[in-house]
Amino acid sequence: MVDDTADTRTVALAYVDGLEHRDWSRLTGLLAADVVYEMPQTRERISGRSAFLRFNQEYPGDWHLRARRVVADGRHAALWLDVRVGAEQQDACVWLDVGEQGLIERITDYWPEPYEPPAGREHLAQRW
Amino acid sequence: MVDDTADTRTVALAYVDGLEHRDWSRLTGLLAADVVYEMPQTRERISGRSAFLRFNQEYPGDWHLRARRVVADGRHAALWLDVRVGAEQQDACVWLDVGEQGLIERITDYWPEPYEPPAGREHLAQRW
Repeated sequence: MVDDTADTRTVALAYVDGLEHRDWSRLTGLLAADVVYEMPQTRERISGRSAFLRFNQEYPGDWHLRARRVVADGRHAALWLDVRVGAEQQDACVWLDVGEQGLIERITDYWPEPYEPPAGREHLAQRW
Repeated sequence: MVDDTADTRTVALAYVDGLEHRDWSRLTGLLAADVVYEMPQTRERISGRSAFLRFNQEYPGDWHLRARRVVADGRHAALWLDVRVGAEQQDACVWLDVGEQGLIERITDYWPEPYEPPAGREHLAQRW
C-alpha cells in the first residue's frame, strides 16, 4: 500500500526547501505542469509551472522561508511558514493538493497581515 | 496502537461543529482546561477554557463556520474554514495542537483579509 501521507509530507518539505534555496530544477520536479497557484486575499491565480516559477524568481526582496509546521494527510498538506524579508517577518498559511503522481497540483497561499484588535475583548485577551 | 491522526481529525471536526452549533458543553469536552488560544495578527492570547468559551459566546454577529478542509497528522490538525457573518465571507486558517489525552491544548487562528495585489505581477496572474 502506498503511504500517501508520507509522500505528501516529503513533497511539502521539499517544496519549502526548494523555494528557500531557489532550486528551480528541484521545484520543477515537484510541480505538475498545470499547477494552479492561488492567493485568495488578492483574488490572483497563476496557472502553470513556468508562470509559478517565474513569479517566485521575480519576487522582490531577499525572502526566506522556514516551515514552522507541516501537517500532511493523504494527498493534502498544510504548511505554516515563517517568512522573512530583511528585518520583516510574516507568517503564511499554505494549502497543498498533491495528485496521484505525487506532484503538487494546487497551491493556495494566505498571507495574513497584522491588524489592531477590535474593542470589547480586552477583558479576555492578553497582548504580546 | 492508538491512531492519533484519526482521533485528531475527529476532534478537529467536532471543534468546528461545536462552535457552529454554539454547543458549549460539547466544546468543553474537547478542550483542555488550560487551552491557549492565540491570534498572531493582533498578538492576542486567551488563556483557559472558560475564557475561550466566553470569547466565542460574546463574539458579535451571527457568525457561521464551515470546514473547507481538515488536515490531520498525528496530534496536529490544520483547519481551512469558510466563515460567514451575514453577507460577509472570510476564510480562516486554524492550527490545532491536541494533547496526549485527546484534548485541544492550543489553537492558533489566522484571519487573512483581502488586499490589493502589488504592482508588477500582472503578466503572471489572473484575477477573479
